Amino acid sequence: MANVVVQNIERADQDVIDGLAACGVATVHESQDRTGLLAAYMRPVYRGARIAGSAVTISSAPGDNWMVHVAIEQLKAGDIMVLAPTSPCEDGYFGDLLATSAQARGCRGLIIDAGVRDVKDLTEMNFPVWSKAIYAQGTVKNTLGSVNIPIVCANAAINPGDVIVADDDGVCVVPRANAAKVLEAARAREANEGDKRDKLASGILGLDMYKMRERLEKEGLKYV
Amino acid sequence: MANVVVQNIERADQDVIDGLAACGVATVHESQDRTGLLAAYMRPVYRGARIAGSAVTISSAPGDNWMVHVAIEQLKAGDIMVLAPTSPCEDGYFGDLLATSAQARGCRGLIIDAGVRDVKDLTEMNFPVWSKAIYAQGTVKNTLGSVNIPIVCANAAINPGDVIVADDDGVCVVPRANAAKVLEAARAREANEGDKRDKLASGILGLDMYKMRERLEKEGLKYV
Amino acid sequence: MANVVVQNIERADQDVIDGLAACGVATVHESQDRTGLLAAYMRPVYRGARIAGSAVTISSAPGDNWMVHVAIEQLKAGDIMVLAPTSPCEDGYFGDLLATSAQARGCRGLIIDAGVRDVKDLTEMNFPVWSKAIYAQGTVKNTLGSVNIPIVCANAAINPGDVIVADDDGVCVVPRANAAKVLEAARAREANEGDKRDKLASGILGLDMYKMRERLEKEGLKYV
Amino acid sequence: MANVVVQNIERADQDVIDGLAACGVATVHESQDRTGLLAAYMRPVYRGARIAGSAVTISSAPGDNWMVHVAIEQLKAGDIMVLAPTSPCEDGYFGDLLATSAQARGCRGLIIDAGVRDVKDLTEMNFPVWSKAIYAQGTVKNTLGSVNIPIVCANAAINPGDVIVADDDGVCVVPRANAAKVLEAARAREANEGDKRDKLASGILGLDMYKMRERLEKEGLKYV
Amino acid sequence: MANVVVQNIERADQDVIDGLAACGVATVHESQDRTGLLAAYMRPVYRGARIAGSAVTISSAPGDNWMVHVAIEQLKAGDIMVLAPTSPCEDGYFGDLLATSAQARGCRGLIIDAGVRDVKDLTEMNFPVWSKAIYAQGTVKNTLGSVNIPIVCANAAINPGDVIVADDDGVCVVPRANAAKVLEAARAREANEGDKRDKLASGILGLDMYKMRERLEKEGLKYV
Amino acid sequence: MANVVVQNIERADQDVIDGLAACGVATVHESQDRTGLLAAYMRPVYRGARIAGSAVTISSAPGDNWMVHVAIEQLKAGDIMVLAPTSPCEDGYFGDLLATSAQARGCRGLIIDAGVRDVKDLTEMNFPVWSKAIYAQGTVKNTLGSVNIPIVCANAAINPGDVIVADDDGVCVVPRANAAKVLEAARAREANEGDKRDKLASGILGLDMYKMRERLEKEGLKYV
Repeated sequence: MANVVVQNIERADQDVIDGLAACGVATVHESQDRTGLLAAYMRPVYRGARIAGSAVTISSAPGDNWMVHVAIEQLKAGDIMVLAPTSPCEDGYFGDLLATSAQARGCRGLIIDAGVRDVKDLTEMNFPVWSKAIYAQGTVKNTLGSVNIPIVCANAAINPGDVIVADDDGVCVVPRANAAKVLEAARAREANEGDKRDKLASGILGLDMYKMRERLEKEGLKYV
Repeated sequence: MANVVVQNIERADQDVIDGLAACGVATVHESQDRTGLLAAYMRPVYRGARIAGSAVTISSAPGDNWMVHVAIEQLKAGDIMVLAPTSPCEDGYFGDLLATSAQARGCRGLIIDAGVRDVKDLTEMNFPVWSKAIYAQGTVKNTLGSVNIPIVCANAAINPGDVIVADDDGVCVVPRANAAKVLEAARAREANEGDKRDKLASGILGLDMYKMRERLEKEGLKYV
Repeated sequence: MANVVVQNIERADQDVIDGLAACGVATVHESQDRTGLLAAYMRPVYRGARIAGSAVTISSAPGDNWMVHVAIEQLKAGDIMVLAPTSPCEDGYFGDLLATSAQARGCRGLIIDAGVRDVKDLTEMNFPVWSKAIYAQGTVKNTLGSVNIPIVCANAAINPGDVIVADDDGVCVVPRANAAKVLEAARAREANEGDKRDKLASGILGLDMYKMRERLEKEGLKYV
Repeated sequence: MANVVVQNIERADQDVIDGLAACGVATVHESQDRTGLLAAYMRPVYRGARIAGSAVTISSAPGDNWMVHVAIEQLKAGDIMVLAPTSPCEDGYFGDLLATSAQARGCRGLIIDAGVRDVKDLTEMNFPVWSKAIYAQGTVKNTLGSVNIPIVCANAAINPGDVIVADDDGVCVVPRANAAKVLEAARAREANEGDKRDKLASGILGLDMYKMRERLEKEGLKYV
Repeated sequence: MANVVVQNIERADQDVIDGLAACGVATVHESQDRTGLLAAYMRPVYRGARIAGSAVTISSAPGDNWMVHVAIEQLKAGDIMVLAPTSPCEDGYFGDLLATSAQARGCRGLIIDAGVRDVKDLTEMNFPVWSKAIYAQGTVKNTLGSVNIPIVCANAAINPGDVIVADDDGVCVVPRANAAKVLEAARAREANEGDKRDKLASGILGLDMYKMRERLEKEGLKYV
Repeated sequence: MANVVVQNIERADQDVIDGLAACGVATVHESQDRTGLLAAYMRPVYRGARIAGSAVTISSAPGDNWMVHVAIEQLKAGDIMVLAPTSPCEDGYFGDLLATSAQARGCRGLIIDAGVRDVKDLTEMNFPVWSKAIYAQGTVKNTLGSVNIPIVCANAAINPGDVIVADDDGVCVVPRANAAKVLEAARAREANEGDKRDKLASGILGLDMYKMRERLEKEGLKYV
């Protein structure tokens, strides 16, 4: 299985993907039984982006970005690259030139459990990245890896074609086969939230809105 | 003492609290013998806020935000919630719905030795949070904790009703009983700073302004 | 060698220094065989600054900023202060008063493997700082250190008078004697990049532009 | 899929499992294309144990060890429990009582991306544990999780019934279906090592034994 | 309150203290509502010690061990020194000479949220230490601190005279006033454990012994 | 300067080197003005070794141990290998085969700001290693580096031929040219310590032995 590029991957329906982007990471995560989050250290290079797309996965040696070049050829419009090094690494695998190339193919962003550089350019280009580090350290192109194989990225299992959702709260993966169902749950959840927000804004307490008082008393909470 | 909600806590004078906010964290910390800072990992979710308020403390199980709902009922206008989990946790205890509810009661912000989510909403709502992490990870409501008991938050001991001061430099706690005295010291310190700043801006050296040369020589510093 | 202030250090040519600033950290680092980067945890207090200058180095005891006052006297216009504590420390060695004094002498910024405070003021003053932490913790003035001796800062060896380049990607040191040669290499690299960027933006793949296909095949990459 | 206990899982052949234990983590990892390692922070509670077994996986809420009790019923002789909390946690999920119960069912050890306690007892009982932390912090039994579902533990994807190998070098997972093939490769590798070790011990250089000199020269290494 | 030495502190009854040592950290922590643990990074310099004693607290500047000398004079037989630096520090505050002096006064050990050195000597002397780091870095004696004031050490609030319990599982503090009551609870808990251990060793499941099956079913756990 | 092997390096006198080993890390560090320590995260793979030797330095790409093979040829009896990756890495660069080869050439140990594996074998072979991590992760042999150039290892600047001293307290570097002078200071320091230890063991306080009382009073310490 080592050192392969899988060229044909299935992707979720684009409308479903865009719907998930609109819901955002926290809602999507809640809507699939609180699963799928990448580790909290995955932070956006700049604030304000909210994207979703199909994962093109990359498994790379530490300090070696050769496979990013290979992966870019596999991108379709709407995809998101997801890179996991084969051992922990913070080097700057990705900068403005690679972003230019990825953006030319319609790539929506990069999720990388390693470092990136040229972050001022990335920000100006509006190419969003969620990474473990910002680090100018250069990489080499000497060791093969793979594209579009199952990976573990920032403690989350990701298969090629899974839906990635990313915003200021972090990054979440939705298994491709579940995407439509999760979107449905997420929208139901959202429909609900407007009403709750209005009630809470008017001063109604969560204790009452969620009917928590009885259960708190039963569990033994004491007011003194 | 476990699983209690203390309903009546004493608070410092509101004018004193607002005076401490105006002085900011670094000055307040210096004015109480360099004590009271929370750990450096407590960072603002967005930059630019400077607040002070009375601590409503929350002790919660890891990954369980039930007590936040309980605490919100105890808030008075001008309060700041301060949450310490009973063991280290980065989960997202708090998001836009809870912020809406807290803001409806006049809460000025949240200090949490754990994670928060919906940070884009929190920023737009102008509800400031200082936290250990930003993480979409959801929490449950299954285990009791306490409200308004003494806690240790990010390596600082905090009692309910203590004054919390928070800005871009971090978070500081002022024991309630000392608040007026600390404000006085902080204002004296500030009065002094304008003059110093003018002198330094004009090119006068700290070495001369603080009369350090003699002591440096006595200690043995050599110029070569 | 302990507790000395070296008063006359050599500096690189100012035009060379300014040229390096224009190239930025990632390019400069690549142009000197991928050496010279400080650790990735050194982050700018605010985004957007890009500076270069001659290093005035400071070796200080943990939690003691006395030597910063001493170092400021040694600053010439265009210098950058570089502070390494003698053991790991995150205290706030530096704030708005010291920045005022340094700026009055033409100092372009601070690189500090420790903490700073008054970051809102530093931002408003446009005094850029790259640090390990933002932390209001105050320091004392009790223990001597040295100014303008060789130091190791954030895992990089720095000599007084070396050129420091810093931007949103991090911090890089260029040995003084190599500065002109590195600038030449950096400019050659930059000249090259515009053309590459255009090609990539037009959809040409890096695989083709860099002629990688043959080598990938030879190494055994399999497309499936 | 949430909150389920899968009762019948397939396991690899016991002889294969025991063969993998004898090879050890470094050899097994090399023999499956350098994949399968758990993160380096997973350390043995005591040195010297070398085990392999079939994974009984546990997904648990942070600070809640209820599912460990559930999992113990699913253990067969030769199994290893593998626990991943649903968000990062260092609490002490496991101590001497649970170890007694697990050992009574023939369990060979525990891999836990969280904390354990009673480590003196665990050592005396000869019940090996690889964990992220040693921490006396107690846990509750309030929130459901799952047993024998696919999990990600310390950045490695693990399915129930996969083979876990653990020793002083860390922890490695071998997918069940590959276990026999990996064992074969590992034994071939080992057969080879004795001869290499003898040559190196006699003073023959790796440069010569592995015939590296030509390639080093071709790549441009210069001896000065 | 800064820079004081409190000379007369109250201590708990020595029999109670020794009783708590015999129970160990995990049991004591459970017996006081799961409170009082120091952070998990506080690890023993060598394994196997289990001690309890009265806290003589030390607040010290980072990198400055002057107050340790002051504290040693305040030690009575059976005491444990507990040091918290005023900001995070890993320097080696303590080595074989200080241990010799402390041991001469009957001190049972050291808890230090910083570093120690001469660990081979400490081990041979049988002087147990729980620390954040082992680090040879020397300290100075230039800045005052305090002895026997309330401190926060490794995220736990500790008052002089509180009982410290430490073993391979970590460190726990028991407020002096609660010591007798906590010992009673701890002994009751222990009495219980032998019986449980026997049952579990015989193969009885925790699920049955703790009667968990009904509650698991009610909460919705599904066996498949 | 990139990709070179410097074949002839100067080494310190072997008697001096052995003398420094006998003094140990803490004493040597103190004897050269508290300089030269590597970071505290550099820990021995097993306890009890105390060595000194001449540094053969290695600069390697992350995850690539090719240069270790090259370095072994450069070893003379009494040398210590010191490896710094060009960016942070925890991979297992070194195991029992390389240790066999190094030991055959009289190498006394390895200092590596990365990971090692086969630690059980290393312990049994009595080949001491100080490393950042223990991690079975394999490395490749694809990218050149250098041998015997100046490096920064774990935040300390090290030149080939410098003396490395390592024991349970960590690792210290002594510049080759200073080795004899530092040994002299270290021995003087040691001569002194026996007497101090005896006095302290007899109950004499450091406060008196070091005559600290007057200075404490002058600085303002208050006994209450």
